[in-house]
Amino acid sequence: MTRRTGRRPGDADTRGDILVVARRRFARDGYDATSLRGIAREAEVDPALVHHYFAGKAQLFEAALALPFDAPSVVAHVLDGPVDGVGERLARTFLQVWDGPGSEHLEALLRSAAANEHAARMLREFMTDAVLREIAGSLDADEPELRAGLCAAQLVGVALLRRVLHFDALVTPDAEELIGWLAPTLQRYLTATGPTDGSP
Amino acid sequence: MTRRTGRRPGDADTRGDILVVARRRFARDGYDATSLRGIAREAEVDPALVHHYFAGKAQLFEAALALPFDAPSVVAHVLDGPVDGVGERLARTFLQVWDGPGSEHLEALLRSAAANEHAARMLREFMTDAVLREIAGSLDADEPELRAGLCAAQLVGVALLRRVLHFDALVTPDAEELIGWLAPTLQRYLTATGPTDGSP
Repeated sequence: MTRRTGRRPGDADTRGDILVVARRRFARDGYDATSLRGIAREAEVDPALVHHYFAGKAQLFEAALALPFDAPSVVAHVLDGPVDGVGERLARTFLQVWDGPGSEHLEALLRSAAANEHAARMLREFMTDAVLREIAGSLDADEPELRAGLCAAQLVGVALLRRVLHFDALVTPDAEELIGWLAPTLQRYLTATGPTDGSP
Repeated sequence: MTRRTGRRPGDADTRGDILVVARRRFARDGYDATSLRGIAREAEVDPALVHHYFAGKAQLFEAALALPFDAPSVVAHVLDGPVDGVGERLARTFLQVWDGPGSEHLEALLRSAAANEHAARMLREFMTDAVLREIAGSLDADEPELRAGLCAAQLVGVALLRRVLHFDALVTPDAEELIGWLAPTLQRYLTATGPTDGSP
């Protein structure tokens, strides 16, 4: 391997080099155990340069896997508004991402995770750390991890049946119809006082 | 291939031969397009013998894939009782099967379906025809396919996160805790008058 320490920061493929290393490290070590510093070292670039190109670990992960969304923005958007609308905002954001451009990369990640334990861990840790815990933890309810897990189960199930397994019943409806059904479920998971509290 | 038309019905491996052919046909042609008659022809046994060993197509499918449940019994059990308990009976039955012996075959099927379009079609058609449409269609509600699809999305999502992706938040709780959360969701999907009708 050629040493590149003499290369100017900002070389055309520095960003690409970082992404190649990041993709390999996330896949091998999972999301939690991968650090921006370790990626910088392996890519032989200054850590500051990683931060120059990517705002944080979540953004680097999304870029490395070509995921069509930005976790901090998604979280901020879902939490921005009245608490009794959080289920609907989560359902709508999720379906917009999955019905939008670039979602084939999400499909690929979901397929990989189902087939491969390394990919499963990577997806699990990213979703838990960067998205779900943030949303559930910001709401004032007990058992935030379980609530986040239930939302994830509902939403990942919809994505799997709609986009990977192609269940007609979930392919045919438009996003608004699905949001109508899913929003009260997610709302209950995130904000109900307990499992049998049916009110939003 | 040796002709076996002279073999006695009831030969020790006749049932096994039928299962081998069935597994191949279901995987290649899907659940809907596979007939017991076609399987009998390819296995070179009398169709009556297939019926002797297997009560119907669903049972042959389950045996061929070593699935740890019997679809008609599951459907009958879920429908047997007050309508306002159907969500809980569905959640409990599903989790019992997935937490019970032989569920590694369900895991294998779910992994295959995520990775492979043939397996996806097979799983989709079996679940839709043999389980979900039966349950949703027996209840007096509009859009039975969509309702069944929403239940499937919720339950398959739980199975995926609990058994394949190993999300801690869904691995840690015992079945009863999950049933408490899932039952009202499934109940609403199956029996609510519309998406925003929150009452069971």
